[in-house]
Amino acid sequence: MSNGPEEEKRGGSIRIGILTVSDRASRGEYADEGGPAVHDYLREVLCVSWEPEIQIVSDEVDCVAAAIEDMSGHGCCLIITTGGTGPAPRDITPEATERVCSKMLPGFGELMRQVSLQYVPTAILSRQTAGVCGGALVVNLPGRPKSICECLDAVFPAIPYCIDLIHTGSITPPYLETDPIRMKSFRPKGK
Amino acid sequence: MSNGPEEEKRGGSIRIGILTVSDRASRGEYADEGGPAVHDYLREVLCVSWEPEIQIVSDEVDCVAAAIEDMSGHGCCLIITTGGTGPAPRDITPEATERVCSKMLPGFGELMRQVSLQYVPTAILSRQTAGVCGGALVVNLPGRPKSICECLDAVFPAIPYCIDLIHTGSITPPYLETDPIRMKSFRPKGK
Amino acid sequence: MSNGPEEEKRGGSIRIGILTVSDRASRGEYADEGGPAVHDYLREVLCVSWEPEIQIVSDEVDCVAAAIEDMSGHGCCLIITTGGTGPAPRDITPEATERVCSKMLPGFGELMRQVSLQYVPTAILSRQTAGVCGGALVVNLPGRPKSICECLDAVFPAIPYCIDLIHTGSITPPYLETDPIRMKSFRPKGK
Repeated sequence: MSNGPEEEKRGGSIRIGILTVSDRASRGEYADEGGPAVHDYLREVLCVSWEPEIQIVSDEVDCVAAAIEDMSGHGCCLIITTGGTGPAPRDITPEATERVCSKMLPGFGELMRQVSLQYVPTAILSRQTAGVCGGALVVNLPGRPKSICECLDAVFPAIPYCIDLIHTGSITPPYLETDPIRMKSFRPKGK
Repeated sequence: MSNGPEEEKRGGSIRIGILTVSDRASRGEYADEGGPAVHDYLREVLCVSWEPEIQIVSDEVDCVAAAIEDMSGHGCCLIITTGGTGPAPRDITPEATERVCSKMLPGFGELMRQVSLQYVPTAILSRQTAGVCGGALVVNLPGRPKSICECLDAVFPAIPYCIDLIHTGSITPPYLETDPIRMKSFRPKGK
Repeated sequence: MSNGPEEEKRGGSIRIGILTVSDRASRGEYADEGGPAVHDYLREVLCVSWEPEIQIVSDEVDCVAAAIEDMSGHGCCLIITTGGTGPAPRDITPEATERVCSKMLPGFGELMRQVSLQYVPTAILSRQTAGVCGGALVVNLPGRPKSICECLDAVFPAIPYCIDLIHTGSITPPYLETDPIRMKSFRPKGK
């Protein structure tokens, strides 16, 4: 998490939202496992200085939508949600995400389901998606730590460049970099 | 189709809607092949007692939407449609499904198209999807019996657990079980 | 591009729209590469006589939507867009496509992303889709010539039959045929 020369050159500070969506965790009846798993993952793969913004909310569309908009408003360039992506009545994270995003990125959900299908046939029940809310890429993840890592391993290589694109035209865009030993992220040459 | 001990223990009776969407079949100009293919398939893989609700409707959004809502209202926990999923002007089953579903499950369509692509490059023309309407999982299938079996083989392992999740909090949820020799369905451990 | 006997028999003349979506190309600041790449590709794979309708528009939803509707109104049976499919603020081609299409065909985007993933992990950032606008199949492609060819190689085998289906019931449907040495398109037997 050191300030690399790349980051100083680019200027923008990096803020990342980690949003746990769970009725029980939000009431304190249950220790949140998803949020810490996302936090650990980001600490492991990112090699630029960054600051987390952490929230736990109940499975209500209004709460999830408001939390995403808050985080985006506070300058988060990436917001990772965990939980609430299944077909149960209280699972509404994808609907809340779609409500506050100006653009949807269906390729994230497609790839995450495809990867999870290698482990369990019920991977098709996950409705997780991704989109753009203001200056933030929002990515929905499932709630289980093991699935979180599988999904992030699949999509993270595309995330730094996605954030560059979302900030096209910005003077001090956030510039994410991953530790190439742990995770090779990809930017097309000449970009 | 015997009443297994599992089913008695769980309590809920199981009703499954089979909805053929076809102008010609609904006018009797043409023998419906899709509906019977779905019925045969379910008889083969399910090892719990269940009751079918069968309807044939024309390719009209209102008719298809009303039939799905009727079946859901009559307590069907699973509604399988056949036909009307292509790009022709009269193909409107996915639109009708989306109209009456509170949640969409894009993973079903993705996997069914991927599996069908192994047989024909025109698999990408199928717009079939799945969603949740009340207490029912709605799954769109193509009209051809051969494609019906290919698609159900791909997604059925996830269907019993999906119905469990849709009925989270219900006192007598329907509990589907498949004959493990014919089809291994999957429920995560501890659930 | 000769008038084959098949085409004479079927009657309908074939018009194909090629729509470049790019602020810079529309202002002449930049030579359009996407449009010519699509044009070359079609010239190479089609073995029926056809006429192109070419337009370059800026990355504005209204402009892209109007151009698609114009081309459809002029009798184009296929409209291929290039550019504007990413997550950047000015990338709005998928939204414009969705606005003017009565039916969406998610299988095109799924397959194109899957194929592009073999080359770059950032393929999931492409939001390209396909749909039906009047009598036209609309397919979004990325802007880079190399990606255009990869995507068209993947989906083109299904395009002639898709256009047949869109024109179900039409007296003189356009009948696309590909050079089987370059590209085998597929029509189910008996259709």
